Amino acid sequence: IIATVDHSRPPALFSSAEMEMMLRAYEERFLVHVSNELVKYVLIIYNHGPEAGASLAHPHSQLFAIPVISNYLRQELDGSASFFQKHQKCAFCRIIENEVKEAGKQRVVFENEGFIALCPYASQNPFEVWILPRRHNPFFQIVDYTERVQLGDCLRTVLKKLYVGLANPPFNYYIQSAPCDGQEYNHYHWHLEILPHLTTRAGFEHGTGIMINVVKPEAAAKFLREVKI
Amino acid sequence: IIATVDHSRPPALFSSAEMEMMLRAYEERFLVHVSNELVKYVLIIYNHGPEAGASLAHPHSQLFAIPVISNYLRQELDGSASFFQKHQKCAFCRIIENEVKEAGKQRVVFENEGFIALCPYASQNPFEVWILPRRHNPFFQIVDYTERVQLGDCLRTVLKKLYVGLANPPFNYYIQSAPCDGQEYNHYHWHLEILPHLTTRAGFEHGTGIMINVVKPEAAAKFLREVKI
Repeated sequence: IIATVDHSRPPALFSSAEMEMMLRAYEERFLVHVSNELVKYVLIIYNHGPEAGASLAHPHSQLFAIPVISNYLRQELDGSASFFQKHQKCAFCRIIENEVKEAGKQRVVFENEGFIALCPYASQNPFEVWILPRRHNPFFQIVDYTERVQLGDCLRTVLKKLYVGLANPPFNYYIQSAPCDGQEYNHYHWHLEILPHLTTRAGFEHGTGIMINVVKPEAAAKFLREVKI
Repeated sequence: IIATVDHSRPPALFSSAEMEMMLRAYEERFLVHVSNELVKYVLIIYNHGPEAGASLAHPHSQLFAIPVISNYLRQELDGSASFFQKHQKCAFCRIIENEVKEAGKQRVVFENEGFIALCPYASQNPFEVWILPRRHNPFFQIVDYTERVQLGDCLRTVLKKLYVGLANPPFNYYIQSAPCDGQEYNHYHWHLEILPHLTTRAGFEHGTGIMINVVKPEAAAKFLREVKI
């Protein structure tokens, strides 16, 4: 999904209108593929920088429509289902509530009426940021122009803060949405995960699946909040 | 664990005696830490090259003694336990048997009396190689000098083939051994995994946990078998 004619301008430097157009394309293509009955799961991703695996320099997103549910999403689904069963509440709605109230917004990077951007409590990489819609919905969906502008505003702000504050780091982002296999997944909550790559995974991480993160999410969020853009 | 005084000579270029000495140090330190009752799991790793997360250039291994069982090992243990329950056989012994007999050694890179090196059927990275002891044992253990020389010979051969054939690529290797939490784990089989980094993980891999591998293990094994060292 090619979002701009400008070869050298990444999403961090998009105008509000460009961001809105890119998200509209995400939504349109997403809707086409989730309605294909051979498809179980649709993932939209963005790679920025060669260290993040970007094989083409021109700013572009990629949409994968796959016939299986991924290991990663399966883990999130199992976790959110077991949380829901125990607490009769969506785990992600609870995270938002906890971050705003009990945690005093110390891990919040940016928020507007529709979305909240935060460094997750157990961030796997330094400066990892998740963007969560306040409105509960298992599936990636933007209901109207206002909501699309809110998401674009949030994504653009976070990407620009990373770009300015950390000198244009390599990153991936991806949109996690419940599988499109006909089930309800009411315990799940779609969101966008931004994963910067400022350190390199080594033998310990590869051999264990346990991530060593040298920056506390509270420190990362404070730093990003204070970056002037 | 510093294996040599020579700053610029990686394990691929070790002599047989140096390799034997390094493995002896692995075993001695391993035995010290598994006997600590606070420790549940001991992992020995090696990082080669900055792209594999090596933060120091001087050839060195690292030993981690940790109070938890890692996600990665937990998955392997769950898989081998369920295979054992179903077939009354160790999954790794069955892999060795299958690779040698049914698969006609097409994924075998090197073998000697004690050990076999192969590109696993579902290799996550191009040129991934596993070294498996033929003798079933859940725990990393080398019983005598002969076995230590056999393992060293196998490891040295594979590392040198990677070094010569792929122009000194970055890699990690790690030794997977059953947890030292007092349980038997007779369904598990210790082994050493070598993970070269010739491609970069991107948004799809990070967002799904599904690896895209552009080199078939049969082609990788054939290539490595034919590398003259």
